[in-house]
Amino acid sequence: MVRVNTNYKNLKQNYLFANIAKKLSDYTAAHPTAKIIKMGIGDVTQPLSIPVVEALVKASFEMGVKETFRGYAPDEQGYSFLKLSIADYYKNNSNVDLDEREIFVSDGAKSDVANFTDLFSNDNTIIIPDPVYPVYLDSNIMLGRKIILINGNDANGFLPLPTEGLQGDIIYLCSPNNPTGAVYTKDQLKQWVDFAIDRNAVILFDAAYEAFISDSDLPRSIYEIPDAKRCAVEFCSLSKTAGFTGTRCGYTIVPEELIVDGESLNNMWMRRQTTKFNGTAYIIQRAAEAVFSKEGLESCKTIIDYYRGNAKIMTDTMSKLSIWHTGGLNSPYVWMKCGMDSWEYFDTLLNDINIVGTPGSGFGRCGAGYFRLTAFNTRENTIEAMERFSKLFK
Amino acid sequence: MVRVNTNYKNLKQNYLFANIAKKLSDYTAAHPTAKIIKMGIGDVTQPLSIPVVEALVKASFEMGVKETFRGYAPDEQGYSFLKLSIADYYKNNSNVDLDEREIFVSDGAKSDVANFTDLFSNDNTIIIPDPVYPVYLDSNIMLGRKIILINGNDANGFLPLPTEGLQGDIIYLCSPNNPTGAVYTKDQLKQWVDFAIDRNAVILFDAAYEAFISDSDLPRSIYEIPDAKRCAVEFCSLSKTAGFTGTRCGYTIVPEELIVDGESLNNMWMRRQTTKFNGTAYIIQRAAEAVFSKEGLESCKTIIDYYRGNAKIMTDTMSKLSIWHTGGLNSPYVWMKCGMDSWEYFDTLLNDINIVGTPGSGFGRCGAGYFRLTAFNTRENTIEAMERFSKLFK
Repeated sequence: MVRVNTNYKNLKQNYLFANIAKKLSDYTAAHPTAKIIKMGIGDVTQPLSIPVVEALVKASFEMGVKETFRGYAPDEQGYSFLKLSIADYYKNNSNVDLDEREIFVSDGAKSDVANFTDLFSNDNTIIIPDPVYPVYLDSNIMLGRKIILINGNDANGFLPLPTEGLQGDIIYLCSPNNPTGAVYTKDQLKQWVDFAIDRNAVILFDAAYEAFISDSDLPRSIYEIPDAKRCAVEFCSLSKTAGFTGTRCGYTIVPEELIVDGESLNNMWMRRQTTKFNGTAYIIQRAAEAVFSKEGLESCKTIIDYYRGNAKIMTDTMSKLSIWHTGGLNSPYVWMKCGMDSWEYFDTLLNDINIVGTPGSGFGRCGAGYFRLTAFNTRENTIEAMERFSKLFK
Repeated sequence: MVRVNTNYKNLKQNYLFANIAKKLSDYTAAHPTAKIIKMGIGDVTQPLSIPVVEALVKASFEMGVKETFRGYAPDEQGYSFLKLSIADYYKNNSNVDLDEREIFVSDGAKSDVANFTDLFSNDNTIIIPDPVYPVYLDSNIMLGRKIILINGNDANGFLPLPTEGLQGDIIYLCSPNNPTGAVYTKDQLKQWVDFAIDRNAVILFDAAYEAFISDSDLPRSIYEIPDAKRCAVEFCSLSKTAGFTGTRCGYTIVPEELIVDGESLNNMWMRRQTTKFNGTAYIIQRAAEAVFSKEGLESCKTIIDYYRGNAKIMTDTMSKLSIWHTGGLNSPYVWMKCGMDSWEYFDTLLNDINIVGTPGSGFGRCGAGYFRLTAFNTRENTIEAMERFSKLFK
């Protein structure tokens, strides 16, 4: 008789965003004419840039012609044309040198972040900051792992650091953070790198929001910290950098010098991906290549500056209303204190001013009493939302 | 100290097709002018059809315009427009009724086949036919599962059936089979369905090659067998149906009545996918929708008939040379007896007549002494390959 993986029973029944979607659809059914402004899920609203669309169209036509048609991508987990573009991007942004073999192209950072933990034994202890992007937690619950949550709070600016006596083998860090928008400094990240090297631990570093960092002193890659290649894997994505949430392309850096427990994680990840994944569509890889072109990066910057402008309008409003908040400046997220239960606040915003945000408690125990708003809306909607906000909380 | 998943040490160091690629690149480096004909990896050569390219281009332009841009796909694992097309396809081909909620769209059958086993406990026993597509085996080795191989051979036409005393909880079946091209009849599949229902076992049915079935008496879906929805998950793909090997789209059917160990596998797979996957690109889903349109299906049929014509040239050659073989008629694969070791045969074909095939031994112990050739080449190359073949073995 077949038996299921009983670890699934320890997961919450519904994924956070599914709950929100349900509440929203119930509200919309009851109030069909309400003008809802969605600042909940971290989804972009600006279209793909012209160079990206041109690359998609060109590659689509190539796929329709026998001479330029492409079947299975090479086993190397990404075409060279894209991996070399990514290496250049790292060199220019962070002065980090990457070999092509250290870059693995995928259908998005979510898949890679969730699957990477499969490379480790189930008897490791996992360190996860709280509040947190739910995927780190859930993908480890599915494996029955021992998990230690470390607390983010207003005292540490939602940037927990290694403390005396902390024990663990695998550490998830996300900077700029989802959901809090907080960004680790180089000194802070160095504390984590030192911790990991001391204990032969591995850092799984989620850099999905690196493109939003405007302060040049803040690290956009963990590899800006010396020795990080010996202890850290980095996940990145074009979802927020270039509006690829519906186009799907990410990449993971697994340094060749990252040897743990006698094994090369680069080799293991290659074995995992060649066995359980069949590569990212050729046309999508061409679109991603266009993101990293001169024109592509300029277009991305224009769009990110647009979202940053939204974030500034939001944080200015919070400041004016004396609401405690973090994020916004180097991140598309603004994380704020509710002064009440997070889901009660969710209901208040939805019912009273037709704004959808994300309850902080959905990201963990330490998120209780906090709320996340995103800057991924249009300028007009952001302005209108903040006007409604100011009226409600004046 | 972090510990790795030591089950990875039980995997063969290199994936079959990586070995072949290495041998091929070594040969090409030494013989740069050789005209190699590749009949090894099951990759298509014909371009995407016109309706599919048109859909890709149209969707790409939509992504560049704010009003029609799409971000994250709905959590339901596929847009309705595509899932309804897939449901129609099943109704028309197999007279099988599917609810939209039973269909999960993905980036390809390989990912789904490899990931699905994560839903089960590691103390299940896995039944896998030998020879076999390596992903079934490797994805279970990665989890340290107990695996029972059941033998395919010339006596059973490489279609093993449940035998007296066979014990196991999860059964992988692939029909039309990769690598052998053999296809189970309805009566044979019924034996497997009865076996599964008797023992509360689950069948993971890989139907990636269903579109190649020309004999209308043969089942294209396991759900043509009564009660199969109570015991079987089905994986399918557009890779071979519509030349999507480099475009990436597949789908998995998890029936709502499939309850095992008290749990709905449909619910569990939804939970897995919403946590560890972020959906298939919108433009790719539009391309897939075009595959299932009237014009799209006609184009697919034309291309599949073309490959079938290649297969006929191949099997006619084998018959003429009195080489034992199976497949070809309802499958793009021809599986043949070597009369020598499979890798020795590989080297002979590569060195003497510049043909690349796949050694049967790479698919398991029972594949030793056999060889796989694919019909996915051009007509001209297939004819030339068979002429070279006839000269070598005359």
